[in-house]
Amino acid sequence: MPLYAVRMDVAIPDDIDPELRAETIAREKAYSQELQRGGEWPYIWRIVGQYSNISVFDVADNERLHEILWGLPLFQWMTVEVTPLATHPSDVALADGGES
Amino acid sequence: MPLYAVRMDVAIPDDIDPELRAETIAREKAYSQELQRGGEWPYIWRIVGQYSNISVFDVADNERLHEILWGLPLFQWMTVEVTPLATHPSDVALADGGES
Amino acid sequence: MPLYAVRMDVAIPDDIDPELRAETIAREKAYSQELQRGGEWPYIWRIVGQYSNISVFDVADNERLHEILWGLPLFQWMTVEVTPLATHPSDVALADGGES
Amino acid sequence: MPLYAVRMDVAIPDDIDPELRAETIAREKAYSQELQRGGEWPYIWRIVGQYSNISVFDVADNERLHEILWGLPLFQWMTVEVTPLATHPSDVALADGGES
Amino acid sequence: MPLYAVRMDVAIPDDIDPELRAETIAREKAYSQELQRGGEWPYIWRIVGQYSNISVFDVADNERLHEILWGLPLFQWMTVEVTPLATHPSDVALADGGES
Amino acid sequence: MPLYAVRMDVAIPDDIDPELRAETIAREKAYSQELQRGGEWPYIWRIVGQYSNISVFDVADNERLHEILWGLPLFQWMTVEVTPLATHPSDVALADGGES
Amino acid sequence: MPLYAVRMDVAIPDDIDPELRAETIAREKAYSQELQRGGEWPYIWRIVGQYSNISVFDVADNERLHEILWGLPLFQWMTVEVTPLATHPSDVALADGGES
Amino acid sequence: MPLYAVRMDVAIPDDIDPELRAETIAREKAYSQELQRGGEWPYIWRIVGQYSNISVFDVADNERLHEILWGLPLFQWMTVEVTPLATHPSDVALADGGES
Amino acid sequence: MPLYAVRMDVAIPDDIDPELRAETIAREKAYSQELQRGGEWPYIWRIVGQYSNISVFDVADNERLHEILWGLPLFQWMTVEVTPLATHPSDVALADGGES
Amino acid sequence: MPLYAVRMDVAIPDDIDPELRAETIAREKAYSQELQRGGEWPYIWRIVGQYSNISVFDVADNERLHEILWGLPLFQWMTVEVTPLATHPSDVALADGGES
Repeated sequence: MPLYAVRMDVAIPDDIDPELRAETIAREKAYSQELQRGGEWPYIWRIVGQYSNISVFDVADNERLHEILWGLPLFQWMTVEVTPLATHPSDVALADGGES
Repeated sequence: MPLYAVRMDVAIPDDIDPELRAETIAREKAYSQELQRGGEWPYIWRIVGQYSNISVFDVADNERLHEILWGLPLFQWMTVEVTPLATHPSDVALADGGES
Repeated sequence: MPLYAVRMDVAIPDDIDPELRAETIAREKAYSQELQRGGEWPYIWRIVGQYSNISVFDVADNERLHEILWGLPLFQWMTVEVTPLATHPSDVALADGGES
Repeated sequence: MPLYAVRMDVAIPDDIDPELRAETIAREKAYSQELQRGGEWPYIWRIVGQYSNISVFDVADNERLHEILWGLPLFQWMTVEVTPLATHPSDVALADGGES
Repeated sequence: MPLYAVRMDVAIPDDIDPELRAETIAREKAYSQELQRGGEWPYIWRIVGQYSNISVFDVADNERLHEILWGLPLFQWMTVEVTPLATHPSDVALADGGES
Repeated sequence: MPLYAVRMDVAIPDDIDPELRAETIAREKAYSQELQRGGEWPYIWRIVGQYSNISVFDVADNERLHEILWGLPLFQWMTVEVTPLATHPSDVALADGGES
Repeated sequence: MPLYAVRMDVAIPDDIDPELRAETIAREKAYSQELQRGGEWPYIWRIVGQYSNISVFDVADNERLHEILWGLPLFQWMTVEVTPLATHPSDVALADGGES
Repeated sequence: MPLYAVRMDVAIPDDIDPELRAETIAREKAYSQELQRGGEWPYIWRIVGQYSNISVFDVADNERLHEILWGLPLFQWMTVEVTPLATHPSDVALADGGES
Repeated sequence: MPLYAVRMDVAIPDDIDPELRAETIAREKAYSQELQRGGEWPYIWRIVGQYSNISVFDVADNERLHEILWGLPLFQWMTVEVTPLATHPSDVALADGGES
Repeated sequence: MPLYAVRMDVAIPDDIDPELRAETIAREKAYSQELQRGGEWPYIWRIVGQYSNISVFDVADNERLHEILWGLPLFQWMTVEVTPLATHPSDVALADGGES
């Protein structure tokens, strides 16, 4: 299945109701973890010193990736950057007969 | 061990001797695969449509990462961007008691 | 099949042998037209005043798109930018029951 | 008729009245679909992970394109980028005697 | 007829044969003046302190503008930026019943 | 008299009182037209798809240009970019003995 | 221990309650000084003419650095840029047998 | 007379004949000093750590400034940025009845 | 004494109380004029078409410059850019034995 | 004495004579170490993954800093960025009565 690197930068406005803020962050976490457990969101890392993450998605196609990102509870306060990935010719998974 | 996302963009000059070019690319591949097999370079992906990769390194510290990158056979023709990573609080590896 | 918008900016160095230049441009044209006729490269437009094009690709996945772009005869003199596309909710093809 | 690639990035402010927001989006969709059906807005694609689209317009001239864009119900919350297009010499429509 | 603002930045490489350089500049001037006299290139201004100009073109459509720009003798050493123009609602030519 | 190209991008905040907005735009138009009729603002064009214009000013000097721009009713909501112009050596007005 | 250069640019919104503002700045100072005294934040300099600082951190690893930065009382109003550092081969501490 | 701030960044190619280089720099210095003594180039400062200067010109108009800059012996290896200046309302020369 | 070029861009928010706005601008003017008369702020110019100035400061050192800039009544609404200056080798003040 | 942060990015052209390259790098190291030992160049760090360093200089004034940077054996192949520094109000050296 195609892989995509996605960077998400979060900027929640100062004047958001704190309860709405906390509730949205909790929904975001649950949403992400469900996709992680389902295998479509295999990696998520925090960027040091930023309210940002770098993630890798492993999904059926562009349509599915957009559906996932558009559905993120924090989507409206995010800047999202998508980079489509392909197998690298130096990947040992190729040399060793594995799939990447 | 600390993780780092690294993006490498390669631009080999047009007038490089083709043999030197081929030999350098072969050395780059061997160098990368040795580090992949050793566990310090766990992921490498090609960026679609670019002579570029996004990689993740899992190394002892900044010194070791610099040593690896500086030693890349293609280093002098690369633009390199390093992003230090940390565990993301939504990572299911945390929730499930695993290590990330 | 997934769609991708791709912008290609071409910069052929001044000191290229004119015959090599002409021959590469001819191969580029043949390569593009074969993919257009095969349905994987449905649109190609010249950007006014630029040695550039905006194209749309309709291919199996990221891997196939990279294979096509990497194989472009002018690839080494191009800057390439890939934007993954999805169906737009306002597209009349949806409203009219067609596929987009 | 001249073609133009247009990228639209939408950023609706957080504090817009939800009804006004929904009503404006509905008017935007109707406005777009009327122009799609009329043939002046032949392509519209969602950019994956963005509240953005890439569109192609096929209109009489610059004046008509500006009239259409200025009239977009979401115009005041959009960033718009216009790229004039011309026929590409590799377009098979030329080789095959068609019009592009 | 549609108008376009075009900015051209010229960067002739140092190692160009001086005769070729002089001859190309002379051809550029003749080419420009023929289009100025024909009415398609109504304005050309030098940008102070730059080897650059800002011009206005008044041509049939995108295709014709591209044909003109692509044919510039200095084209291969230029960076070109095209901005499509429309009538401004404050233009007195409108208020006074003239055409702009 | 010296010429200047000026680009103005307008961004009126969402929460401006609609009457103030309409009245300011009306004053802007009157202000512009008076200067157009007086000969100091010879050209004004709308940029297609933008709340922006490209104008040419023909004024006594830098001081006068700043006085005009600073006095624009929409000035506080504008981003302004000034490019000083000079006669271009290819201008046919020179070749034909006219003044540019 | 690994070193990191960190640039922090502060932009406190105009409409923050002055007491909250003062109290947050005081907490920031105390937080910074505790880390300075503990040896993890060895250098902090003001950038001339900016509400910004350049700092050097000397911490166990990426995780610890993120924990520190995320905990900054002003974090939500900061733009933070992290640059991982390594020993420079010209550093006299190396030549003289010291540690850097 | 109108004032202009001008920033010049110099980048002489590596492979220039050393004699030509030295001779061009000497001509640049003589050219600059003649204009300084004539009053049209009242200020020139080196930017610390750059092969660059910030200058102020006090010339008749845009045409004269372009003539001076275009004639700089180093012009073809420079990047030039021109900023037109006007009297500042806080300038004490105004308050004290002097000329600025 | 060391010189510094400083560019200040002012952006006063729309919703500032008009009296506070006027009073702050008046204090800014007085503050600037006192430093001009004291010799530490020898030049201040308005940038044409911008709410901005380019100034030159002649102060004891970095600490003093920061103290002055930080104390500007408009500081919180300014973007400030500082460029340290040195004597230019072409400055006639050197050739003529003067100090620059 | 005033402090300055300086970032240096090195790009030695491919076609430099290897001996000249090695000799210049050796002179750069000696030059740097002499200034480090003399106290004017107290810190130098390698940026991970870059042929770059971040340094801190502690020098008499702008003139001296420019003299040092201009004299760097690698200067012509460097991009240099200078940031003047001042004491930070949170610096414990102040709180503890020390000098910063």
